[in-house]
Amino acid sequence: MFSPMVYLPRTSNRANVIIPPVKLSELGEFGLINVIRDIVAKSQDQEHASWQRTVLGIGDDAAAWQSDERIELATTDTLVQNIHFDLGLMSWEELGWKALAVNLSDIAAMGGIPSYALLSLALPGEVGVEDISKFVSSMVHLAREFGVAIVGGNVAAAPNIVITVTVIGYCKGKTLLRRSQARPGEYVAVTGYLGLSAAGLEMLQARTVLEPEISGILRRAHLKPMPRVKEGQILVKQGVKTAIDISDGLVADLAHICESSKVNARIRIEQVPVHPVVIANFPNHRELALYGGEDYELLFTADEATVGRVKEALDCPVTVIGEITDEKLPSAVTVVNNRGHIVPCRKGGWEHFKSIPRSLDTPMGT
Amino acid sequence: MFSPMVYLPRTSNRANVIIPPVKLSELGEFGLINVIRDIVAKSQDQEHASWQRTVLGIGDDAAAWQSDERIELATTDTLVQNIHFDLGLMSWEELGWKALAVNLSDIAAMGGIPSYALLSLALPGEVGVEDISKFVSSMVHLAREFGVAIVGGNVAAAPNIVITVTVIGYCKGKTLLRRSQARPGEYVAVTGYLGLSAAGLEMLQARTVLEPEISGILRRAHLKPMPRVKEGQILVKQGVKTAIDISDGLVADLAHICESSKVNARIRIEQVPVHPVVIANFPNHRELALYGGEDYELLFTADEATVGRVKEALDCPVTVIGEITDEKLPSAVTVVNNRGHIVPCRKGGWEHFKSIPRSLDTPMGT
Repeated sequence: MFSPMVYLPRTSNRANVIIPPVKLSELGEFGLINVIRDIVAKSQDQEHASWQRTVLGIGDDAAAWQSDERIELATTDTLVQNIHFDLGLMSWEELGWKALAVNLSDIAAMGGIPSYALLSLALPGEVGVEDISKFVSSMVHLAREFGVAIVGGNVAAAPNIVITVTVIGYCKGKTLLRRSQARPGEYVAVTGYLGLSAAGLEMLQARTVLEPEISGILRRAHLKPMPRVKEGQILVKQGVKTAIDISDGLVADLAHICESSKVNARIRIEQVPVHPVVIANFPNHRELALYGGEDYELLFTADEATVGRVKEALDCPVTVIGEITDEKLPSAVTVVNNRGHIVPCRKGGWEHFKSIPRSLDTPMGT
Repeated sequence: MFSPMVYLPRTSNRANVIIPPVKLSELGEFGLINVIRDIVAKSQDQEHASWQRTVLGIGDDAAAWQSDERIELATTDTLVQNIHFDLGLMSWEELGWKALAVNLSDIAAMGGIPSYALLSLALPGEVGVEDISKFVSSMVHLAREFGVAIVGGNVAAAPNIVITVTVIGYCKGKTLLRRSQARPGEYVAVTGYLGLSAAGLEMLQARTVLEPEISGILRRAHLKPMPRVKEGQILVKQGVKTAIDISDGLVADLAHICESSKVNARIRIEQVPVHPVVIANFPNHRELALYGGEDYELLFTADEATVGRVKEALDCPVTVIGEITDEKLPSAVTVVNNRGHIVPCRKGGWEHFKSIPRSLDTPMGT
């Protein structure tokens, strides 16, 4: 789903004249989302029932609106061939899994229960029927794990593969996880371990040979992530209000929370739970954990007592990695080491349009 | 949304051995939809609540499931550059309108009320920000007409433009329009006039110069269709059970109804309401009305009394063009003239993957 950030217009070299970006490659993904959000906000009929019932519009992991008895959720994500995935490095079966998993993770980030899915396939005619069967079977397998019914979609011919999955779900009560409720003094915590998915991508791209067991863990983490659907629901139940799933990368996704909540965050690099397999095999393990993305773990903020309850309630590890603050810091997210020194932090995270064009064998996740 | 039809496996030249299609270009769009539907039907957990509440899965204009008080609807459609649209022939503003309109028309075909929309954009970096602003503004304009809130979506970089819109809606009561309820003896009727959209496409592609007023009507019909949302709701209210929107073409869409309902249909060519502008300017006007598609009118079946009530209740023309029958006819849909002679009828309608590759300036609608 849309994850907006503030964008800065270019300034001309000659004077302080602001030149608005002309092409998407200048505006960037998050700039584009802001443009769309502004147009929608200004022009839509705010008095209509659909708007009045809207709980969350553009700018979170999923859209949310109030029905009579619960909060309804909907999210959509698109995977584009050679931008998001490379069939030289992954199978159709893994692609089917992942296309649904990234959407389920968006529902998880709201603390919701996924219920229905729609599948839109834009495909070249040369694609094999057997491959599409594997793709769909794998998607159905994951859907079944979470009680999701695939009820519709669309197929169309296209010069390259574009897969769009929409997942519809709901929250049982009146509350859900948002990006915008983080408050100074809260802890920043994360489920599971980070860096595995990015390490998996690095291994696949570099064709690094590792022990089969390790290579299997890394491949699965990158290509068949398991969304934290049940964990999201437990977060809501334990009183957490703010969460996001880690798709763009830890620092980038925490920045999304800071942006939405109008706060800053400080994370302590030594506390970031990098997976032991990543530490053992990748010298750049901290980079991978901070900026790699696609871990599909849940990043959340809450007070100490709530984090304590969450730790008890969840089966997976929960690690406090920093705190939300209203201090003026150099950037929305500041990374410090255990002596309190600031660790230089690149903006991090993948941003569409602005990135260097990638060759066919260097895909990047969103 | 998916519109499945029966597909026939190839037979080898040498013997009666059935060789299953290997590539999508052999299987075709409707074959692919059947493959997906079969996998989903076989593998999903039919005992889960999501499945038990499913009213319509793959194979209608929208998916439908039962909530406590009403029927929920969801539909998605993808437009691929140079397959569904050609920016040499249409503006970004028209594209934004149409991308939403085709989805609203799917909700109309269920007799539903659209409420929320998600927008997924896969775009090259060279696309202009101004163009995307026009695209979104136009979409929002149409959304507003129907009380639809655009609440989310996704943007991603891609080598060519792929637009996927998802619309979520509902039916107030417990009934909705389906493709599968047509019964022998019922009339086949259609709202409005046919052929305008296909004539508009022909005019644009051939760069035919017509009087500005006529050219405006044709262009609007093809590029800014107005979905029959209110009309669909009135059909339900008046007791109609079977309908489809005309996107693939009159004959092809009536065949979808016949397929789903396991009946045949006979239409009388002289009764097909071809728009006067099409008759006056296009010698092939009957072809355009029968096979052209993208009219986004509603095609429905009902008994005589119901059709009579619908005619009274709707502001737009309603024309009876034939009837549903259980007679054995040469094909699901048979076109006859007023002497009862069968008019040779091509299969008609656009089918993805199977069609001849099109050059950049010959787009085709779904």
